[in-house]
Amino acid sequence: MSRILRINTKERTFSYEDATEKYAGLGGRALTSRIVLKEVPATCNPIGPDNKMVIAAGLLTGTIAANSGRASVGAKSPLTGGIKESNSGGMFAQKQAKLDIIGIVLEDKPEVDAPFFNIIIDKDGVRFEDASDLTGKGTYASTETLLERHGAKTGVMVIGPAGETLRKVASIQFSDPNGNPARAAGRGGMGAVMGSKKVKAIIIDDAGVKAPAVADKEAFKEAAKRWVSILKDHPVTGQGLPAFGTNILVNIINEAGAFPTKNFRTGQCEHVGEISGEKIVENMEARKGTVKEGCHPGCIIQCSQAYTDKDEKYLTSGFEYETVWAFGGNALIKDVDTIAMCDRLCDDLGVDTIDMGNAVAMAMDGGIIPWGDGDAAVNLLKRIYDKKDPLGQIMGNGTAFAGEAFGVERIPVVKRQALPAYDPRSVKGVGVTYATTPMGADHTAGYAVCQNILKVGGDVNPLAPEGNVDVSKNLQIATAAVDATGLCLFVAFAVLDTEDSLEVIAKMIAARFGIDFTPDDVGKAGIAILQDEYAFNEAAGFTKADDQLPEFFIKESLPPHNTKWEFSTDELQKAKAL
Amino acid sequence: MSRILRINTKERTFSYEDATEKYAGLGGRALTSRIVLKEVPATCNPIGPDNKMVIAAGLLTGTIAANSGRASVGAKSPLTGGIKESNSGGMFAQKQAKLDIIGIVLEDKPEVDAPFFNIIIDKDGVRFEDASDLTGKGTYASTETLLERHGAKTGVMVIGPAGETLRKVASIQFSDPNGNPARAAGRGGMGAVMGSKKVKAIIIDDAGVKAPAVADKEAFKEAAKRWVSILKDHPVTGQGLPAFGTNILVNIINEAGAFPTKNFRTGQCEHVGEISGEKIVENMEARKGTVKEGCHPGCIIQCSQAYTDKDEKYLTSGFEYETVWAFGGNALIKDVDTIAMCDRLCDDLGVDTIDMGNAVAMAMDGGIIPWGDGDAAVNLLKRIYDKKDPLGQIMGNGTAFAGEAFGVERIPVVKRQALPAYDPRSVKGVGVTYATTPMGADHTAGYAVCQNILKVGGDVNPLAPEGNVDVSKNLQIATAAVDATGLCLFVAFAVLDTEDSLEVIAKMIAARFGIDFTPDDVGKAGIAILQDEYAFNEAAGFTKADDQLPEFFIKESLPPHNTKWEFSTDELQKAKAL
Repeated sequence: MSRILRINTKERTFSYEDATEKYAGLGGRALTSRIVLKEVPATCNPIGPDNKMVIAAGLLTGTIAANSGRASVGAKSPLTGGIKESNSGGMFAQKQAKLDIIGIVLEDKPEVDAPFFNIIIDKDGVRFEDASDLTGKGTYASTETLLERHGAKTGVMVIGPAGETLRKVASIQFSDPNGNPARAAGRGGMGAVMGSKKVKAIIIDDAGVKAPAVADKEAFKEAAKRWVSILKDHPVTGQGLPAFGTNILVNIINEAGAFPTKNFRTGQCEHVGEISGEKIVENMEARKGTVKEGCHPGCIIQCSQAYTDKDEKYLTSGFEYETVWAFGGNALIKDVDTIAMCDRLCDDLGVDTIDMGNAVAMAMDGGIIPWGDGDAAVNLLKRIYDKKDPLGQIMGNGTAFAGEAFGVERIPVVKRQALPAYDPRSVKGVGVTYATTPMGADHTAGYAVCQNILKVGGDVNPLAPEGNVDVSKNLQIATAAVDATGLCLFVAFAVLDTEDSLEVIAKMIAARFGIDFTPDDVGKAGIAILQDEYAFNEAAGFTKADDQLPEFFIKESLPPHNTKWEFSTDELQKAKAL
Repeated sequence: MSRILRINTKERTFSYEDATEKYAGLGGRALTSRIVLKEVPATCNPIGPDNKMVIAAGLLTGTIAANSGRASVGAKSPLTGGIKESNSGGMFAQKQAKLDIIGIVLEDKPEVDAPFFNIIIDKDGVRFEDASDLTGKGTYASTETLLERHGAKTGVMVIGPAGETLRKVASIQFSDPNGNPARAAGRGGMGAVMGSKKVKAIIIDDAGVKAPAVADKEAFKEAAKRWVSILKDHPVTGQGLPAFGTNILVNIINEAGAFPTKNFRTGQCEHVGEISGEKIVENMEARKGTVKEGCHPGCIIQCSQAYTDKDEKYLTSGFEYETVWAFGGNALIKDVDTIAMCDRLCDDLGVDTIDMGNAVAMAMDGGIIPWGDGDAAVNLLKRIYDKKDPLGQIMGNGTAFAGEAFGVERIPVVKRQALPAYDPRSVKGVGVTYATTPMGADHTAGYAVCQNILKVGGDVNPLAPEGNVDVSKNLQIATAAVDATGLCLFVAFAVLDTEDSLEVIAKMIAARFGIDFTPDDVGKAGIAILQDEYAFNEAAGFTKADDQLPEFFIKESLPPHNTKWEFSTDELQKAKAL
């Protein structure tokens, strides 16, 4: 059996239940979204006692399946007001799976002025400890202390000052194999939900436990072996991502005219050479950084890195394309070391880098700091550490909030979540995803950059509307399914291009649990997840009026292709017709 | 014929059209809501070019009918995202009606960095003048300059620094008979819509025009005479309001246990004697203030006043119960002179006093300033003058925004608009109005305090749910109808208790236009207005999930009656079943 661990944060009590009773066969995003739908009143206050936070391991997490170590975090989002699943790498999920806990559910909440505490989960159960010493501290210092105290081999998920103060784009940071809190369940304010429950950190310790047995070991081994070769053989997962990380995209997306620049005013950026993946690798090679590492054990794509500063000192990791874009392209910051410092600060504060980079662009568009001023951006981020600093309060609440505070008319958000690094007017498939995913603007929910630009899994014109609704719809279904397995989303590049890939994934799931599971079931799982999420959002008051991009994308053409966003709200609904 | 004046704020052009072509028979809120429904895309950006701002005179405005001088301002609200009508007294509407302009429509918008300008409307047409000298100035200084420049007999509507900087609770201030900008279209951020169009002020001059002829003078005169006696004979409109203004309610609502105190934690306030209407009158009498004056010529209720400071200098006017409550009760400020200064500052900044008083309570609840600290509250408001002050940016966006900035869990808003001065748990009829009116929490949309507490127009238990949905529904219909006539809402006290009142109003309308108009038509007009407003909000993405109070009203009991809010969302929908 697999268990669900329920923790009452008000009473500081816990209990286990058999996951097969109410939530059989669900893992990752399938489990988080189902529990949120069934147990969280859709109209509740996201930082009130009725919200629940679910941390789920995927169906394949804890096994030897390559790249299966992702953790899903779900709740009602304080940012969007809708359902949210945000997933992360790091050390946590595999240990959770090994403890045979498919889902951890944080319930209720202490009084507003109650102290913060930590939760320690191990083979003997759950303990609680005071977190007063860590309160107000960044995630780097907090994680260091916690790993020292509870053992370097434990896994940590922790919030920073932003989560403690209930900021709407607060993230949860996860410790990586080097003990750095550089992996994030970044989007949608999951850190604020954790903060509202007064939980500073959860420490997970799998010492002394054996992973749950795989039902059919031989079949699993065989499928897992083929799985490795699928990932190794594809040019993106086998070569591109390992060589340059996700920043390989800087030049590609800019070349495609879809690299949003100066708050989505143009699709190409003049100083792109200074912030490209190639430049970042050059810096790391010159400064004893690490170009290639995994965010969790068992990762063979190894798109992460250790970025070092000019003194060859570790600065940040999990330094993604979207972060480089947000600060470098959209806010025009040219110096890549400054951008890396922004990434470091976001991780330490515990805030989403995408929403934060866009919020910095809002400060520039609103005349608060000059365009492209990296030092000013760094100072702006630092103000989030101070709970009572009003500028920090604004910035910590993200792009929509900052844009409204600064009187900006062009605010790039859907469902109040900031748009990522692909201009929807020039990558229309991903625009459909931004508009229609229940998550708010999110590229990972249906990454049509594949078919639109990378020509992986198909070839659909990124500039014209034709075909892009279907592309997005199918990707959203597939993505939801992948998010249920615990597999890293980047496997999708290889999966989309490899005929037997779905069969192999299905085989691993079947062998893991000793059940029948076919490629068809993968698709069905994806559909079921989206149905749950649509149902929650509908009950929360979302309508098709929420499934549209801001009007400036419709009114303004984007150079160099001079394309506009031309989908009607009704056309977009077809992407949700499951 | 009556005309609609359209002004393109981008091109600075204007044109007249015959109102009977598309908008026959509509005035006040009926006209603003119909134009907004028909001409404003429901999902547009409220501060973008597609929003329109409509300033309408009522059907009876410009006539000798007592208390008929209200102006309605309508647009899509930057605060709620829904339709908004906010109405105000002052000198403007009667002059507009005399110019035979039933509606003024501001369209399109200049570039974000374009200069502010003023619009002058007179018998010869429309002129535009640069407003650089007034930009950044408060409404008091601006109005003084404008009345000097354009003549003391003109009417002015003007925004303050809050409207210029697109703050979500920015008001439009209207000059009163003494030339003070103390009357406000306060709620829902109409000042931000005007500011987005770069209009600092509109000056209206009716010199040299004769009011449009009344169709049946004798019949009108007779009805108007009876109308005066209806208002004079009722104890509320004939005695209570003239004697103490709206602040007569401080003691009454507190006695009823419905005076929200310390951010809606209790229903009675210990220092109520220090901020009561009786105390305010005592001060005015001792300091050469004016206890009794009208907000527009032809007002016979005379609930306004000139409140003076300790040096007998004019401080503020239009000093309403809701303002005294917001700062005095909900934010615990004991000194009534400080509260009057807050009112003055709100008028000068151009912000809604209800949303601002609640925002001050948010700052107190979030630990930004101490509870009850009046000087700190005054300083907080002053920061709104500075466009770049982040604390001013937060406060100027109102209660919902401030609560979210300061990390407050208990935020008293519906559709993001702050609750007024009556706790919905102890005045359940008004709670139904808060939840269900398309305006966001608004007592004026269906003032069930009448039947619940004042026992005007009926007697319905304020503490139990029974009967309150119907009371609110009927009042919302009647109120919408009154808002179409240009009559002050306070006539409702007399109307509800006087058998022939609807007939008299219908007679005045019939005689004014020479048409058939019956008491039945009054009700139908109210229903039609609400239908328009519901249709707009539905298209804007509102659902029944938006028609509910914040969850703390459901979870927490209010002393002294220890009542909770117990209406389900579905029950509440019955108040909207027209």
